[in-house]
Amino acid sequence: MTTTGTTRTDAGGFVATLRAHSRRYHDQHPFHVRMNTGELSRAQLQGWVANRFYYQENIPRKDAAILSNCPDVEVRRRWIRRIVDHDGTTGGEGGIEAWLRLAESAGLTREEVLDHRHLVPGVRFAVDAYVNFARTRPWIEAVASSLTELFAPDLMAQRLAAFERWYSWIDPEGLTYFRARLEQAPRDCEHALDVVTAHCLSAESQARAVDALSFKCDVLWSLMDAIEQAYPE
Amino acid sequence: MTTTGTTRTDAGGFVATLRAHSRRYHDQHPFHVRMNTGELSRAQLQGWVANRFYYQENIPRKDAAILSNCPDVEVRRRWIRRIVDHDGTTGGEGGIEAWLRLAESAGLTREEVLDHRHLVPGVRFAVDAYVNFARTRPWIEAVASSLTELFAPDLMAQRLAAFERWYSWIDPEGLTYFRARLEQAPRDCEHALDVVTAHCLSAESQARAVDALSFKCDVLWSLMDAIEQAYPE
Repeated sequence: MTTTGTTRTDAGGFVATLRAHSRRYHDQHPFHVRMNTGELSRAQLQGWVANRFYYQENIPRKDAAILSNCPDVEVRRRWIRRIVDHDGTTGGEGGIEAWLRLAESAGLTREEVLDHRHLVPGVRFAVDAYVNFARTRPWIEAVASSLTELFAPDLMAQRLAAFERWYSWIDPEGLTYFRARLEQAPRDCEHALDVVTAHCLSAESQARAVDALSFKCDVLWSLMDAIEQAYPE
Repeated sequence: MTTTGTTRTDAGGFVATLRAHSRRYHDQHPFHVRMNTGELSRAQLQGWVANRFYYQENIPRKDAAILSNCPDVEVRRRWIRRIVDHDGTTGGEGGIEAWLRLAESAGLTREEVLDHRHLVPGVRFAVDAYVNFARTRPWIEAVASSLTELFAPDLMAQRLAAFERWYSWIDPEGLTYFRARLEQAPRDCEHALDVVTAHCLSAESQARAVDALSFKCDVLWSLMDAIEQAYPE
């Protein structure tokens, strides 16, 4: 990639533009707002848990697509930790398993989550779009698309408090996934931000990184839209 | 995948058909035969090391493509070890680094290997075909294509003996990669064979697995052809 004929922008302005996408993060979605203010019914919360599982179980496949497209062994050595975080190294470990335990704590069976019987088409399409993005776009754009993690810790902290306050029928043991992400997301997004700022030096490449993050905000928002439609008041 | 309307073949016959592909393994290639009987010149051996590096550095990307396509978390948990074996977890580790040390032991610089100045088009095309196969074909076929590892330990043992006997100008320290593969290949192909025999139960799926292994034999053979053409007697 060349920077010839392009305008370099300052890294500070680039990072600020990325961070400004927090206003498009799905924590602003009406369904999410209602989740965090305790207004969701049991059926709505179960619907969210079951549908969001499809996102969770596809995350390692998205990250493996980035690994596959990335020629930089140093980047791969760090990126691979994300896959281990989600898959675990043996049975009973990892983020996918933790989400299944959340589902059980919320009164769902593992089977009904794993067999996708509750999965609505809009959620499937949004998640598949994200995996396809990672498979087909330049790896640095796929890395940039992960930068919604910049906004995740605040949402996780809010969600943990909200679940403990409003949805006490969910066994607190089931909230392990969110607690783990409170530590993983800052570590992950620090690396992703380092890689994106190191590689995106031209105005064009920075614009593509911003577009990728914008796309990812659309994925998460669209997922919420589809869940809201499927589980109305 | 269904087995309806298909003929199940016995697993023993299937495995025997896979193993019979040893006669198409690249250890039978004239260039490889000459390598193991001490007939290659220094330039020819250096050419092989520099070109084969392109294969080595693409192996983790091939394996990440399989991870990305595989929906089975149990398979992914074991398959990911291959990526760690090749990439290592920190600088100075892993199979790619070990191959670079082999190159240095053979009188090449890291730079001339990493920048692909010696890479011949036929090697690039063969390796790229292998990575594209893993990206675009069903994951179980990509797993089957890795089964050339069934034949690798014999070749590694032969190669180690040949290098120590005929090419003593190569520092034995540089042979670490081959020694590591003596242990890794049997472990890896045992897993791959378990997965393939568990998933390929119909005659059709077994035929596709055999085709995949045949394709992989073609990749390795074609790589040898291209190197032989580029570095004649």
